[in-house]
Amino acid sequence: MNNKLKHLKSIIAKNRIDAVLISSVPNIIYLDGYSGFSYFEREAFLLISKKIVTQPQGLAHKTPGVFGYLITDGRYSEAVSKIPYFGILEISNKNSLDDIFKSLSKNIKKIGIEEYNISLSESKKLKKYFKLIPSKDLRNLRIIKEKNEVLKIKKACQIGDEAFDFIVKKIKSGITEKELAFKLEYFIKKKHADISFPPIVAFGKNSSIPHHQTSSEKLRTNSIVLLDFGVKFENYCSDMTRTVFFGKADEKFKKIYNTTLESQQKAIKFLNSSFIIHNSKTKPVKTASIDKAARQYIIRSGYPTIPHSLGHGIGIDVHESPRLSPKSKDILKEGMVFSIEPGIYIPNYGGVRIEDIVVLENKGICLLTHSPKHLIEI
Amino acid sequence: MNNKLKHLKSIIAKNRIDAVLISSVPNIIYLDGYSGFSYFEREAFLLISKKIVTQPQGLAHKTPGVFGYLITDGRYSEAVSKIPYFGILEISNKNSLDDIFKSLSKNIKKIGIEEYNISLSESKKLKKYFKLIPSKDLRNLRIIKEKNEVLKIKKACQIGDEAFDFIVKKIKSGITEKELAFKLEYFIKKKHADISFPPIVAFGKNSSIPHHQTSSEKLRTNSIVLLDFGVKFENYCSDMTRTVFFGKADEKFKKIYNTTLESQQKAIKFLNSSFIIHNSKTKPVKTASIDKAARQYIIRSGYPTIPHSLGHGIGIDVHESPRLSPKSKDILKEGMVFSIEPGIYIPNYGGVRIEDIVVLENKGICLLTHSPKHLIEI
Repeated sequence: MNNKLKHLKSIIAKNRIDAVLISSVPNIIYLDGYSGFSYFEREAFLLISKKIVTQPQGLAHKTPGVFGYLITDGRYSEAVSKIPYFGILEISNKNSLDDIFKSLSKNIKKIGIEEYNISLSESKKLKKYFKLIPSKDLRNLRIIKEKNEVLKIKKACQIGDEAFDFIVKKIKSGITEKELAFKLEYFIKKKHADISFPPIVAFGKNSSIPHHQTSSEKLRTNSIVLLDFGVKFENYCSDMTRTVFFGKADEKFKKIYNTTLESQQKAIKFLNSSFIIHNSKTKPVKTASIDKAARQYIIRSGYPTIPHSLGHGIGIDVHESPRLSPKSKDILKEGMVFSIEPGIYIPNYGGVRIEDIVVLENKGICLLTHSPKHLIEI
Repeated sequence: MNNKLKHLKSIIAKNRIDAVLISSVPNIIYLDGYSGFSYFEREAFLLISKKIVTQPQGLAHKTPGVFGYLITDGRYSEAVSKIPYFGILEISNKNSLDDIFKSLSKNIKKIGIEEYNISLSESKKLKKYFKLIPSKDLRNLRIIKEKNEVLKIKKACQIGDEAFDFIVKKIKSGITEKELAFKLEYFIKKKHADISFPPIVAFGKNSSIPHHQTSSEKLRTNSIVLLDFGVKFENYCSDMTRTVFFGKADEKFKKIYNTTLESQQKAIKFLNSSFIIHNSKTKPVKTASIDKAARQYIIRSGYPTIPHSLGHGIGIDVHESPRLSPKSKDILKEGMVFSIEPGIYIPNYGGVRIEDIVVLENKGICLLTHSPKHLIEI
């Protein structure tokens, strides 16, 4: 059994449940490696049980040493037939999802669910057959990365760095945000990777909107250029932001830029020092305190607070646990991979964000993104 | 007030509720035109109330003639500030989502929700403040398209046709599925449009998996080439599938191809005749009967049943109401736009799918995709 399934078995034991029903696509990818299901519609469930006691009705395929079932429909039956550890239960016109749940409920009574992912209508259907036990452990299932996961994120970050290096050379007068975004995407795909989200390219005033929608705006001289993009490599994501200046930056911009950069450095320093202390003194460090260190620096410098959290975990999802926000209750632990991305945004002027990905190792953090952070003027 | 908001007000009156809480991204785009929110995380709610009686705490912005509130956070405040009809309630560290709901609950007691979209944990939070009334009307809010919506889908389909015309010329020995998919994407983006989903390109045996994950497989002579892709134009999607043959098709393939094509023609004929009868005799026609016409033709020809539904509505989402499946209860109505996509899939051999988009007009259907459907050998 692999470590991930072992971990899940321990969650089953701890919560005293008979099985867990995994519904979120990233958790399905994490546990069975198959990444073909849509994020937009429910196309599959993964049921992992304490013990499979019988072969339920509708079982199309059973592999030896089965730990549970992948419940999906005929569009995927062939594609998933080679997944190890899991049998396949095929939803069809003759064998509805209700039929499958009913059949499973003969031996499985209490199931752990991802209550942030199961919809209210799905929960009503499930309640007909099972006692539902929401499990927070499932939300944080992927919070600590294994070595091979870190390697994949590292590779994604490396391609991201190459992409930044490439795209800086393409910044020229008259190019549109969309054209630049597409060049980024093209570069990444040429590297046999994918984008982890549609790149955000924001020129001038547009950069004051943290999640600006890349538009047909053309680049003019003396403009901010904010680039926020990520790479997906073998199911694992990177994410990075750099803000450069097209033209000659004035003092106002330089101050905003440097304050953002210093805020990130504050967070990194605080992280390194407090995590080392934590390791020796075993005092837990909240991610919220890292957010605070960076946020307060920006506010004290006379700028508005960061209108988003300082950072987020990253892995199969671009945004996952832990959260580095003022109200987060997450505690720093070795093996966590997350972003540190302070930003200053001035409406009708523009904004600066600098974002890197780090992995928390036993002696502090290790940076996974390496693109330059001095103020680049083009 | 626009027609869409009028429709929503009638849903509020019919369900005797005080407000509806729109949570799904496509419904938010449909109602306020803003398409910047993520599909992967909850970033906004749109509250449309019977009557706005007070200005709740935390209201950052109020436009005259307000019909409700867009509830979102600081990352989006500036971007959404120009949306007409709606005030903005900003979620922040000082004003949590709970605070906002609590404040709204002073005047709003019963709210209609999208129970297929609200998660179980969100419903628990909402229940603290409101009586939740699941509303099926919200799921079908976009089922009938207005004229300008059909025009956008038509334009998306037209770009799709041009893309097909382009991509057929790029099919050559040794090219990979991924390369072909990327060329499609590049062509579509050059047309100032976007892809509506990652293109499915399947060579040879891969085409027997209806939702094959486009791979690095290289094209060899005498192979099936299945292309399933869509365009997004001004928030509206197209979707089409063509299956061509690289080499000289043998009798086996020709028979599968022709049976699929004939199955689609059966569906179209049945649709046209029954909908005209329906219009004069006012006898409702179920979408399920269209699925049956196509499905039975394939089964009677000696092939396995279609492992998916015959078709799906399309609009802001690639897959939306109505559904053309054996168990669907949807009734055909003028203004519906949907796909008709029969397929025959033979494991370890390959498959054929032919998919077009149609709009149901008062005298039958009108085809929106026009790419050739005779067997193309390259």
